[in-house]
Amino acid sequence: MVAHSVLLDFTVSANVIADLEKRSNLKSAIANVLGEHFIGLKPLTESNIDGSLLILYTGPRGSLITVRGYKEGLVTLNIEYFKQDDEEALLTFEQWRYLEADVAMALNSQRSKCLPPVRRGTIYDLYLTLSDERLLEYDIDKLVFEARSPYQKVQIVHSKSLGNLLVLDELQNMSEADLIYTETLMQRGKENYAGKEIVILGGGDGGLLWELLKEKPKYVTMLEIDDVVMKACSQHMRSICGDCLDKRKGDNYEIIVGDCVKALAHMIEEGRQFDYVFGDLTDIPISTTPHGDAWDFIRLILNSSVKVLKPTGKYMTHGNGASCPESLKMYEEVLSQLCIPVTFAKDRAFVPSFFEDWIFYQVSLK
Amino acid sequence: MVAHSVLLDFTVSANVIADLEKRSNLKSAIANVLGEHFIGLKPLTESNIDGSLLILYTGPRGSLITVRGYKEGLVTLNIEYFKQDDEEALLTFEQWRYLEADVAMALNSQRSKCLPPVRRGTIYDLYLTLSDERLLEYDIDKLVFEARSPYQKVQIVHSKSLGNLLVLDELQNMSEADLIYTETLMQRGKENYAGKEIVILGGGDGGLLWELLKEKPKYVTMLEIDDVVMKACSQHMRSICGDCLDKRKGDNYEIIVGDCVKALAHMIEEGRQFDYVFGDLTDIPISTTPHGDAWDFIRLILNSSVKVLKPTGKYMTHGNGASCPESLKMYEEVLSQLCIPVTFAKDRAFVPSFFEDWIFYQVSLK
Repeated sequence: MVAHSVLLDFTVSANVIADLEKRSNLKSAIANVLGEHFIGLKPLTESNIDGSLLILYTGPRGSLITVRGYKEGLVTLNIEYFKQDDEEALLTFEQWRYLEADVAMALNSQRSKCLPPVRRGTIYDLYLTLSDERLLEYDIDKLVFEARSPYQKVQIVHSKSLGNLLVLDELQNMSEADLIYTETLMQRGKENYAGKEIVILGGGDGGLLWELLKEKPKYVTMLEIDDVVMKACSQHMRSICGDCLDKRKGDNYEIIVGDCVKALAHMIEEGRQFDYVFGDLTDIPISTTPHGDAWDFIRLILNSSVKVLKPTGKYMTHGNGASCPESLKMYEEVLSQLCIPVTFAKDRAFVPSFFEDWIFYQVSLK
Repeated sequence: MVAHSVLLDFTVSANVIADLEKRSNLKSAIANVLGEHFIGLKPLTESNIDGSLLILYTGPRGSLITVRGYKEGLVTLNIEYFKQDDEEALLTFEQWRYLEADVAMALNSQRSKCLPPVRRGTIYDLYLTLSDERLLEYDIDKLVFEARSPYQKVQIVHSKSLGNLLVLDELQNMSEADLIYTETLMQRGKENYAGKEIVILGGGDGGLLWELLKEKPKYVTMLEIDDVVMKACSQHMRSICGDCLDKRKGDNYEIIVGDCVKALAHMIEEGRQFDYVFGDLTDIPISTTPHGDAWDFIRLILNSSVKVLKPTGKYMTHGNGASCPESLKMYEEVLSQLCIPVTFAKDRAFVPSFFEDWIFYQVSLK
């Protein structure tokens, strides 16, 4: 069960709305053309808001049809109705385009647009946003898993093009089509992990651990707080994590379920040193200044991580979308102000489930 | 100048809407929380449509706030207002999320969603659709060129991530980031074009001609109907087409502006034969049956093209999105019923400006 909202808009001459006689013609023209497309169309109410026109109609299947004529020269037409799973849509895609064409002709509109129906109330999110807040509709056709852990809402949904997709608090995290993400994060082919000691902060989907284990490291310690994520991925994302999340300890790895900040503090106390630390936690925040809890957490993680690196060690992490240069710049400023001086390199890759280029950092001690 | 529509929805228990006393509580809860977020909120009208609740408010800056409570257990909240170019948005992205959280709490909603504002009335399309009719917002920030040719609406817009993007009748066609499209269409590295005779049907963006010329063919004849497209691309898509569209004739190529069907018929009459024919015209139609004008055109083009192929020749073309297996299957059935028997191979590539995997066909005579 979902509600469908279909949004159309039409650019018209401003005087069509502003001039009262023309407005009256416009109103009959709209009523006529809507009457042709919607059987049983009934006017509900009409009003004037700040000089803009508002007309409401009810149509078939309890649909509400809202027409607004803005005095600047824009008419919007919204149709919203409730659709049961076994019901057909009110109009086909083609019929919506005919409606658009007919209204455009009736309004003498020079530019019009009809968006595909926005589906509302689905049990999984069909619409996820890119890092620059753009809207993107995924081809999700099934909710595979859902649970609320103590830390976040954990969903695994199935996408027709991406396979299973892990979604944490409505944020797309990792899909079965995203090997390039892990390979760019670890700089496969450029870094040598054989015989190395490694820490992963986060990494609950198991993808990074699974790929690192293929490179014969000496030992990998993974610090992940959310057991629900690991169990879900172990069951539903096996093409990503293999069997590495099935048990807490293997020949050359261990998964510690808990707060990585505390574990890092303990490692610093013990004077432990690693070849690689991976920051596979939340993304760099999108904000106007590098302040607030999220940035404090990033600084804390970075300052703790560099303290457990061998002098030749590296801190590897993902940044954010290439479309957010301001946030990336703030992150680089944070890097330049750590308790231990560092240098960094960057790489980028198009991540299929993110639908955008992503930036990855490789941080070395100076 | 654009109108912004912000769509929120909230899943609630069905009895919250169906039970009249509960519905009355719900109404006051909504009025309270909206009053906190929108200064000067005023009730406009209230109604009952097929057992679902409708409440309209007007808010700041002439905004219209529509609340619908569907008896099945879904509340939609739509806010629409007009925004001048120099005005701030009514609420920031963060403030919309706070509104969502507050309404969700007031409604005791277990699942809610707030879409980024849909911008309506822009001079270029921000929203283009994928081949399976999914909605996608592009990062378009500038209209570079616009004209209406005798055949179609021709626009070149600038995308922050893709560079310039050719849009024909609201359909994304080719961007400066799409070399992979041309390379997969021509099977670069797998086909040898040196010394070959080639026909391009369509190809107005010039990308295919430009890349083919790099492979030292004997002669390329391009048949494109729309001079407006070629002039626009020649000026604004030079990273795609180089200078090959600047003139109609080069040492080893010619561009004939006109109907390729007539030109092909003429070539058949003359008994001309080519090593390669490229179908770089419209996509395979998305339809339920392989009938109608669009499919007839495809059959006509295919039957004409195979008649001008040398026995060793190939017909190369783009199909459609990998997400449309039904349409691709219909196309393959059309291939199996041509006037001359053929076999075909397929390849696929993720095309950046299409945001999806695209299928390409290589057709050989049996």
